[in-house]
Amino acid sequence: MQNAADRLASAIAAVGNPTAMGLDTQRGHLPAEFAPRDESAQEICACILRYNRALLEGMHDLVRVVKVQVAYYEMYGLPGITAFSETLRLARELGYIAIADCKRNDIGATAGAYAKAYLSPEGGFSCDFVTVNPYLGADGIKPFAELAGEYGRGLYVLVKTSNPSGVELQDQPLADGRKVYELMADLVSHWGGGLIGSCGYSAVGAVVGATWPAESTALRARMPHTPFLVPGYGAQGAAGKDLAGCFDPNGGGAVVNASRSLLCAHQKRPELGWLEATRAEAVRMREDITAGFRKGADE
Amino acid sequence: MQNAADRLASAIAAVGNPTAMGLDTQRGHLPAEFAPRDESAQEICACILRYNRALLEGMHDLVRVVKVQVAYYEMYGLPGITAFSETLRLARELGYIAIADCKRNDIGATAGAYAKAYLSPEGGFSCDFVTVNPYLGADGIKPFAELAGEYGRGLYVLVKTSNPSGVELQDQPLADGRKVYELMADLVSHWGGGLIGSCGYSAVGAVVGATWPAESTALRARMPHTPFLVPGYGAQGAAGKDLAGCFDPNGGGAVVNASRSLLCAHQKRPELGWLEATRAEAVRMREDITAGFRKGADE
Repeated sequence: MQNAADRLASAIAAVGNPTAMGLDTQRGHLPAEFAPRDESAQEICACILRYNRALLEGMHDLVRVVKVQVAYYEMYGLPGITAFSETLRLARELGYIAIADCKRNDIGATAGAYAKAYLSPEGGFSCDFVTVNPYLGADGIKPFAELAGEYGRGLYVLVKTSNPSGVELQDQPLADGRKVYELMADLVSHWGGGLIGSCGYSAVGAVVGATWPAESTALRARMPHTPFLVPGYGAQGAAGKDLAGCFDPNGGGAVVNASRSLLCAHQKRPELGWLEATRAEAVRMREDITAGFRKGADE
Repeated sequence: MQNAADRLASAIAAVGNPTAMGLDTQRGHLPAEFAPRDESAQEICACILRYNRALLEGMHDLVRVVKVQVAYYEMYGLPGITAFSETLRLARELGYIAIADCKRNDIGATAGAYAKAYLSPEGGFSCDFVTVNPYLGADGIKPFAELAGEYGRGLYVLVKTSNPSGVELQDQPLADGRKVYELMADLVSHWGGGLIGSCGYSAVGAVVGATWPAESTALRARMPHTPFLVPGYGAQGAAGKDLAGCFDPNGGGAVVNASRSLLCAHQKRPELGWLEATRAEAVRMREDITAGFRKGADE
């Protein structure tokens, strides 16, 4: 069973692009040709799914990782969850690495039930990586890590999130001199120690926001075997130069998520078709990110 | 719009029982008369739903709060999520206060999408309270608190969880002398300050494990307007005497979840029918818990 970190590294290498295309697909993002005929959840979700399929088919030579944010599907109830499940299935069928951004968290058998849903081949939401929240400690992580090892899947654990108020907890100084996010980084490194692939990275990764360049650079050194999932690029304010510290000198170790900047690219360039506009933005983003870490490597 | 904390207090007072019946319904828990005819997810989920309905109809004079753990439904994929949604709907229709135990967490518009799914009347998983995880700070809480205020719903924020490894993060001492869970308690009190009902409690509650009697007693004093959702009773090891500190002197301020001890009661007393066995355990639990806090009040 191939390690998920190795499969991820291969997928990124195949297109030279460490971007994860964020399928946070919303009704207001849909290009005109995918516009719903009415505002029922059923119809909106059918259009979202039709768009996701066209996007996945049209971007495969430029991007090989997708992150699907479940909240934008869950808000539509059962039709939304059906579209979420189908989007994950389709992405994997088309050869993408599919990250389910669900931030699941619970303990023991309950965490095991979540892990089965996302990380087992027969799970209803079977994906390559799932995001998890570490507030409950190892009891909430181990059931995921176990199935990740068994089935060649992986997980990303929240460490230093991109949003401003993340600091309320994550940047609190501890009595031992670390900050809370540094404690979490150390725990995540430990939890992932048994799942390091031949690429040098573990199937247990960390979510580290692009909006904190100094902290992400320090975390890259602190957790050398932990791959990063990096949110916050584009619409949340971070640019390629802010990301250099997330990568290792070979350009490995991170995948950068962009959602709105890709999904809404067609709104900014109405002179292009929706897919051309999205592709142009993906190319621009690839150059922006890889220029950032090539520069980082040169310094 | 009545405050959710007031609705909760009324529901508990109506039956004199601060128990939340945990519908973590699993295939292995089902009484013989609800046994699936085959092992397909569709059939298992249909049986789980049929059992949940019979349980909700048969327990209404003894219990008025239910907590539905989504993980045990999500593990069955779409048929499971359908049963989850229907269980929440049915519980509310029958007059129960329904807590969706989902531990959702995200930021901004994404958290807003979750909040809409759970706390708006038209949401696909509309419930009275939803559990949330505070690792991302206020950005992950405010969208829920806003809809809670708008629609008379509520949320429970993880503070001190019942599981052993919760201490890895939650009990870390901070440089300012507090522990991480005490910091979270202070934040939760603050976040809930605008949503205090006439019962004196807020619609923004806290999850505080029954397995930590000293800590829960101290938290009761530290956050006098925050209602507690207390897991860990029964199968996880805590008994009524451990819970006294979670309640105020009037027996208010907490709802105690029990899942396996109720759902599996019929396996321990095969001489009774499944509903009779569950009812007997609910009566025993009510006496155990209320004796605990009556004793607490006397001391």
